[in-house]
Amino acid sequence: MNDPDCIFCKIIAGEIPSSKVYEDETLFAFKDIQPVAPVHILIVPKKHIPGVNEFSPEDEPIAGKLFSAARKIAADQGVAGDGYRLVVNTGKHGRQSVDHLHLHLIGGKRLEVSLG
Amino acid sequence: MNDPDCIFCKIIAGEIPSSKVYEDETLFAFKDIQPVAPVHILIVPKKHIPGVNEFSPEDEPIAGKLFSAARKIAADQGVAGDGYRLVVNTGKHGRQSVDHLHLHLIGGKRLEVSLG
Repeated sequence: MNDPDCIFCKIIAGEIPSSKVYEDETLFAFKDIQPVAPVHILIVPKKHIPGVNEFSPEDEPIAGKLFSAARKIAADQGVAGDGYRLVVNTGKHGRQSVDHLHLHLIGGKRLEVSLG
Repeated sequence: MNDPDCIFCKIIAGEIPSSKVYEDETLFAFKDIQPVAPVHILIVPKKHIPGVNEFSPEDEPIAGKLFSAARKIAADQGVAGDGYRLVVNTGKHGRQSVDHLHLHLIGGKRLEVSLG
């Protein structure tokens, strides 16, 4: 547990249940409980990094693993062929909902053009 | 030049003009010509990686650099404090417009909640 008050740290630790779809030594991934599309997965580092503004050079390998995991999970979820969207929200303007860095993987339908 | 038919490779090579905001040995970043918000930057690897589905383990350091550059560019553009959104579109469902991996950095206004 990195931050005892963080809901994602509690999910990673198994203290709060989740629909896990992937886990390795660096990352944990589970279904978003408020999906915006048929496939909506959150991929989170096990390390408690609050957000992109707190992402340090030493965290760069984690970002690499996030991309590799996104590719694998998209394939596992059957959306690799049709496509998908990866999103990281930061801060108030970005509508970040939990202050633990997370990558949304969204697919299973043709997504809206608008990004903002 | 990695792919002579790729518009982003041409921008990186300076063959097509762009409003560059950042460059290092790995990445090139420029203003989106169709911004959806006051700040809308595209951060692209100089290596021609078509998309996330073609992202290989050897490319993981590039993803790390993408996150570090996003943090720096968000600060440079004055949106770090209020927040921003990072997006990578993949394939048809994801509305990927150019087949060269690119990270959208979007900010400068309160973004829509919807991600898909």
